[in-house]
Amino acid sequence: MHALLRRLFPICRSLAGPGNRETLRVLGETLPLKITDVPTGTKVFDWVIPEEWTPRAAEITGPDGRIHARFADHNLHLVSHSEPIDLKLDREELLGHVYSLPQQPDIVPYVTRYYKRGWGFCMTEHERSDLLPGKYRARIDADLKPGALSFGEALLPGDNPSEVLVSTYMCHPSMANDNLSGVVAASGLYHALAARSRRRFSYRFLFVPETIGSIAWLWNNRDIVKGRTAAGLVLSCVGNEGPFTWKESRLGNTFMDRVMFVAGGERMKFTPVTGSDERQFCSPGFDLPVVMLSRNYPGTFPFYHTSADTPEKTPPAALAATLVWLERICDTIERSPVQYRRTDPHGEPMLSRHGLYHTLSRRKESGFDRVKDPRSAMMWVLSFSDGNHDLLAIAEHSGLSIDALAGAAEQALAAGLIEAVTPA
Amino acid sequence: MHALLRRLFPICRSLAGPGNRETLRVLGETLPLKITDVPTGTKVFDWVIPEEWTPRAAEITGPDGRIHARFADHNLHLVSHSEPIDLKLDREELLGHVYSLPQQPDIVPYVTRYYKRGWGFCMTEHERSDLLPGKYRARIDADLKPGALSFGEALLPGDNPSEVLVSTYMCHPSMANDNLSGVVAASGLYHALAARSRRRFSYRFLFVPETIGSIAWLWNNRDIVKGRTAAGLVLSCVGNEGPFTWKESRLGNTFMDRVMFVAGGERMKFTPVTGSDERQFCSPGFDLPVVMLSRNYPGTFPFYHTSADTPEKTPPAALAATLVWLERICDTIERSPVQYRRTDPHGEPMLSRHGLYHTLSRRKESGFDRVKDPRSAMMWVLSFSDGNHDLLAIAEHSGLSIDALAGAAEQALAAGLIEAVTPA
Amino acid sequence: MHALLRRLFPICRSLAGPGNRETLRVLGETLPLKITDVPTGTKVFDWVIPEEWTPRAAEITGPDGRIHARFADHNLHLVSHSEPIDLKLDREELLGHVYSLPQQPDIVPYVTRYYKRGWGFCMTEHERSDLLPGKYRARIDADLKPGALSFGEALLPGDNPSEVLVSTYMCHPSMANDNLSGVVAASGLYHALAARSRRRFSYRFLFVPETIGSIAWLWNNRDIVKGRTAAGLVLSCVGNEGPFTWKESRLGNTFMDRVMFVAGGERMKFTPVTGSDERQFCSPGFDLPVVMLSRNYPGTFPFYHTSADTPEKTPPAALAATLVWLERICDTIERSPVQYRRTDPHGEPMLSRHGLYHTLSRRKESGFDRVKDPRSAMMWVLSFSDGNHDLLAIAEHSGLSIDALAGAAEQALAAGLIEAVTPA
Repeated sequence: MHALLRRLFPICRSLAGPGNRETLRVLGETLPLKITDVPTGTKVFDWVIPEEWTPRAAEITGPDGRIHARFADHNLHLVSHSEPIDLKLDREELLGHVYSLPQQPDIVPYVTRYYKRGWGFCMTEHERSDLLPGKYRARIDADLKPGALSFGEALLPGDNPSEVLVSTYMCHPSMANDNLSGVVAASGLYHALAARSRRRFSYRFLFVPETIGSIAWLWNNRDIVKGRTAAGLVLSCVGNEGPFTWKESRLGNTFMDRVMFVAGGERMKFTPVTGSDERQFCSPGFDLPVVMLSRNYPGTFPFYHTSADTPEKTPPAALAATLVWLERICDTIERSPVQYRRTDPHGEPMLSRHGLYHTLSRRKESGFDRVKDPRSAMMWVLSFSDGNHDLLAIAEHSGLSIDALAGAAEQALAAGLIEAVTPA
Repeated sequence: MHALLRRLFPICRSLAGPGNRETLRVLGETLPLKITDVPTGTKVFDWVIPEEWTPRAAEITGPDGRIHARFADHNLHLVSHSEPIDLKLDREELLGHVYSLPQQPDIVPYVTRYYKRGWGFCMTEHERSDLLPGKYRARIDADLKPGALSFGEALLPGDNPSEVLVSTYMCHPSMANDNLSGVVAASGLYHALAARSRRRFSYRFLFVPETIGSIAWLWNNRDIVKGRTAAGLVLSCVGNEGPFTWKESRLGNTFMDRVMFVAGGERMKFTPVTGSDERQFCSPGFDLPVVMLSRNYPGTFPFYHTSADTPEKTPPAALAATLVWLERICDTIERSPVQYRRTDPHGEPMLSRHGLYHTLSRRKESGFDRVKDPRSAMMWVLSFSDGNHDLLAIAEHSGLSIDALAGAAEQALAAGLIEAVTPA
Repeated sequence: MHALLRRLFPICRSLAGPGNRETLRVLGETLPLKITDVPTGTKVFDWVIPEEWTPRAAEITGPDGRIHARFADHNLHLVSHSEPIDLKLDREELLGHVYSLPQQPDIVPYVTRYYKRGWGFCMTEHERSDLLPGKYRARIDADLKPGALSFGEALLPGDNPSEVLVSTYMCHPSMANDNLSGVVAASGLYHALAARSRRRFSYRFLFVPETIGSIAWLWNNRDIVKGRTAAGLVLSCVGNEGPFTWKESRLGNTFMDRVMFVAGGERMKFTPVTGSDERQFCSPGFDLPVVMLSRNYPGTFPFYHTSADTPEKTPPAALAATLVWLERICDTIERSPVQYRRTDPHGEPMLSRHGLYHTLSRRKESGFDRVKDPRSAMMWVLSFSDGNHDLLAIAEHSGLSIDALAGAAEQALAAGLIEAVTPA
């Protein structure tokens, strides 16, 4: 995942344009991506698809001939979706178009002006405050013209056409945690799930420009998405070493919220004010059971939306740990609806007779942990296979992982102690 | 409010009698009070309207000719509803009728004997313990005879005949926090609401002697009060600087409890053991959605029911703060049932297109508070205008004030993003 | 209770055999026990009744002629349900059959091998590590042969045939807290309830070998137990001075769980992994409203399942306190379903008119505790006798004991202020 992240890092992405298409093309090398192009000007609900932006070169030339904020050096130097210009102007006029971070004077901010014509440059606060008085030339060689917004999706079919949505955004230029981490983690999850011999659910992976992209995709799927989507997650800023955090769906009471309670991570209340595309998926017209996952919630870490969000901020070990978490979430989803019923629900079965229990009963040594004892999961499965509790509910009651419960259920099934109510 | 409190302070109120009528007359100078007289002996549910009490003079004359506990000095010196007497008796006999506070030896307690004939005097513990041996004369010049119990009510009509009940008690003689504070706060609230160009609800203000008065009023309104009362609050001891506190309705789950959760203040469980007239309004036969408001819960502050409960204990600033709180509660009630629905509920609207969002997106400076950002309220309104959540419910979910939400809703309505489901 | 405990202590109990019958015979001297014998080999749900075990003598003779682990010295020296043997074997071979507690080297563990043929001895770790090299003789004189498993039950009838189940186990040999404490506490409770002039519920006391015994009893009662059992409790390790602890029923939401919330004690979540016969009573096929009571949860105290669990560990005062708790639980059960309705539910009644309230109202001295004031219970009863709340529900709302509420209700009933909805 980290190699892919480094490969995608230099590309200048935006809402629509060649950087996005190149990103999708690279992803398409290993994922069966279906690309959709939505033409500029298309109305998608309350929104209109913007023009494509094709930046080629940009820089400021100072009164002394020095070059500032050269796009070729770092694509954050150019405000995203800046229009083409070639202007002579003095320092004061120029400063109205130059953005920096006074509180973090060494790094370059990420600034966009997607939906209104204009232009701007970004530089460090040090560089900005060193600009000499005099005449400057600001030059932006770019196109802003009709084209299409592109997004990609890959479907991994399972036994059931009911889908788990895994959505992430790929509109940010050279920044790693926000959100190439999401892009490569989604890609990693695709491959991990594809390698499985069996999937109960189907999985749909989306790579969209944030907000407008998920809205365009929802527009294209507006009549079917609600009935087809069993659960979903949005990945944002999942590449660093922060605590695994999940943000509730809008009402916080869906199947996916229950899955996350069992799969683990810090729970965060829903808010429509910040976050990512979960706000679109959870909007009242769709109200999908979608949560958002992050390791540092967007906007809360110091290098957020700056040139300091480099690949070093998303170490391979952190990405690997994220993938483990994502797989555990999918395991929980997969096993959740499985429900068993005791073949004879009266009393506990005599486990020793079924080879499932030691035959000598002696006091446990101190340090023995009954909860980690595999027998614990067996007892919970047998006690709650009552026709009312699926594995997800048993996990909620017991505090055990759904893995441990599924393992015990397999043994109990093999021993004839339980039978499947829903296909296992 | 404080001027009115000082004017009402000297009047000797009780359950029924000229002091109460005088109090209602003064209130009637600025409120359109309708006065109801309920004759002595009238049966109101389990209760019987008592006789009127008209104290004129009272004092104890000591063996040395010194005067003690003179009613003319402070009306707390006389136990409320004491019968007329003129007795000679020695110190020991007298002491059985003299009440003081051994733990607060400098102040005079407030004592009543409403429902059983008898008499008594109150004085400081210092004065009581200095009473010389010898013969005393105790004289009470008062009438206890049939008449009527009076209460006043003022109705402030609104768009909707559904009523908010604002009830407070005016049976206490010269004490300020308990409960002239409630009387003048209710009066202040009347004028504040009357000055509004519009009220969605109607407001009914009650000034009653405590317990028997609310029961008599309920008796008179027994067939209509339940259907007519949307919400209600009882004011008790709201004049000092204690924390704004509200006591739940009997079951704690009514509209008015939800309003208070949003309007703010410390929540206190319901108890039928202490409190004020909420106990009558919440009694099982009526079970009205009524809470009780106080700043120091009755019985919990050191000068409660004593001569130390002077107007200085209820400074104008505290009364003014209480009025702000009461207005916020009414604002919450007024705005609670307003419900909107997104005109197109799919995804978020493109706020910048509607002039509701900045067009340049850049990182927020540290110190920026998104929750106080007006955009927060807008996002909550748009996310929860789903046909299931009125403004009260959105306030509960978001933790934002209903004011902020109503302001955002107005903007969204003007922009055509939402439409009213219930009349706004 | 402690005398009975000391008398039962020396008897060697197991799942089935003469020790159990002797225990039931002793209990039968004061309880009207009905004894049921279930023959060896009987299938009870998933289980099969085991053979009877009759140990007579056992010991190990060392190479130096010294005797080790003599059954006559302490019946824990012999692994329960050991088969008869008379073997010569050298130390290494012997050690595979010798159990000790390395972490508690001075005490003898309790070990069983109920359901698989074999044999073993238990001794202290000190003794085990002192065993000399050489030849040993291990001799067990015992029978393991078909017979019957016995359990006893005693029914104490009440007004209502609906039953409260009080179950405890009597399969443990010489150990006091686990579980002669449960046996004698159940016996004590029987006598306390029998002495009452009236019982609303019927009480069924069970003395069974753990697990297999309750399963056998459930088998015998499989068609009627669900409809007949209103509540139940299992006693385990109730003889020492630990905090009163109750373990929820399987779903934690039954009548019996509500009773325990009101009766008091530390609440513990249900688990099917550890505990006692509540696991059988709560199994999905029965799902009875049964909790488990203990003072130290089985397995959590240092002398659990060892020779150190002596009668000194269950002092008479602790057993007496347990009995007080058990009686309070039964009081709560008895009074729970009683429900009243106000004769006139409008407003509070005028308590002074009914002789239920002081007629002089004065400020309470500091230190006055309204909650302990008997008037508190009266006010709660009057406020919540609304046709929806029985005494159990009023206790849940008020935090008062059901005793205090029942006392107040009696007074209110006598005064005609309430009437019984369900027979009191």
